[in-house]
Amino acid sequence: MAAMEKLYEGKAKILYTTEDPEVVVSQFKDDATAFNALKRGTIVGKGQMNCAIGTALFNLLESKGIPTHFIEQTSPNEMRVKRVQIVPVEVVVRNIAAGSLCKQTGIPQGTVLKQPLVEFFYKNDELGDPLLTRDRLLLLELATPEQIEQLRTMALEINQILSEFFHQCQIILVDFKLEFGFDGKGNLILADEISPDTCRLWDESQSDPTARILDKDRFRQDLGNVENAYQQVLERVLSHLSI
Amino acid sequence: MAAMEKLYEGKAKILYTTEDPEVVVSQFKDDATAFNALKRGTIVGKGQMNCAIGTALFNLLESKGIPTHFIEQTSPNEMRVKRVQIVPVEVVVRNIAAGSLCKQTGIPQGTVLKQPLVEFFYKNDELGDPLLTRDRLLLLELATPEQIEQLRTMALEINQILSEFFHQCQIILVDFKLEFGFDGKGNLILADEISPDTCRLWDESQSDPTARILDKDRFRQDLGNVENAYQQVLERVLSHLSI
Repeated sequence: MAAMEKLYEGKAKILYTTEDPEVVVSQFKDDATAFNALKRGTIVGKGQMNCAIGTALFNLLESKGIPTHFIEQTSPNEMRVKRVQIVPVEVVVRNIAAGSLCKQTGIPQGTVLKQPLVEFFYKNDELGDPLLTRDRLLLLELATPEQIEQLRTMALEINQILSEFFHQCQIILVDFKLEFGFDGKGNLILADEISPDTCRLWDESQSDPTARILDKDRFRQDLGNVENAYQQVLERVLSHLSI
Repeated sequence: MAAMEKLYEGKAKILYTTEDPEVVVSQFKDDATAFNALKRGTIVGKGQMNCAIGTALFNLLESKGIPTHFIEQTSPNEMRVKRVQIVPVEVVVRNIAAGSLCKQTGIPQGTVLKQPLVEFFYKNDELGDPLLTRDRLLLLELATPEQIEQLRTMALEINQILSEFFHQCQIILVDFKLEFGFDGKGNLILADEISPDTCRLWDESQSDPTARILDKDRFRQDLGNVENAYQQVLERVLSHLSI
């Protein structure tokens, strides 16, 4: 990767330019943040683990017909991805109630939802990534009605694929956050990352509500064994993809 | 009003039973609260002013075909209303961006919306009355899809009637909060109150963003002249209804 310039540094990744204006390198960091960056720390090896998990899952999704920004992994913690114009909306899919849904509605943690719930949040740190109704999404001109439908449809398709795959890994996909962007041709494609930073993943073989957590909630809630959890996810993902 | 028993005491009103099980008395208090009751105070004469304003506006709405819980005013700060099963949802209609919409989305205060925005909030003090998406409303089983449509339609009709009427009073109806309930026959009717406690009202003749405020924001923001503002609204409402 010659002559890379830093394009953008986020909380968990740095984007660099490449010789191709349509391609950027996404470098995964060990930095961990939570609660809108009020809590900060390091998860040793996270950059490499998330890069490997992301590579595996983007490959899986591409093989199932989901367009993503992923091109190829180029180093243990770097991947080449298509440069996109990010839609400033976090698309969250929930299969089981957890996190902010419970805090905001009083629905008990762990409630299995009758059908997957797709929610939109405004990707805006200053405002604390607030929940968006459809009307607010339109009012803020973050997406057109057609784009909202497309985001919802893609999110549900991705949920179907990932839920099935994680179940093969004996992991419950509780919920996850996606980001989408427009590529150079104006197509809406999956971007950002899919990892234990952005998914809630529960070990199916554990019934203890703390022991089963295999994702960033271990960091958020100071549960310990954070690195082990990410490593567990990585190993199971890799072993089931190679079958 | 013989043998009344206190049925419920809210922040701004007390409900009493009557000899008729289908009828309750709503007594308006001078107590004022804001920010989920973190701020408390008294607005002298508010109970009587809001009771009179509410009586006028419920009469206006009834005359235009909107079913409400209002029966009759029975004392300066009391009205007889139909007993309803309250829908635990606050229905907010916005014509101009203000308050929580601005805080949560970054849309500048005072932005005129292209069309009225109907929003739903969970009437739940413990949770801080959170914004509800349509999906969360359904998930919490607070209303059926048909009831959501009915609430939205009624709220927009009420907005049309009240916006026109307040404009005659040289007042801009910026936004307002409604509550609905099911009467004894299972019909969805307008309940609660309509007053400067529940509406944002701006004096059309004032351009100063503070001087024009004729509603509870004067109390929320410690702007002074709270009682005068409510009195202004009352006088204009009464003088234009009697035309």
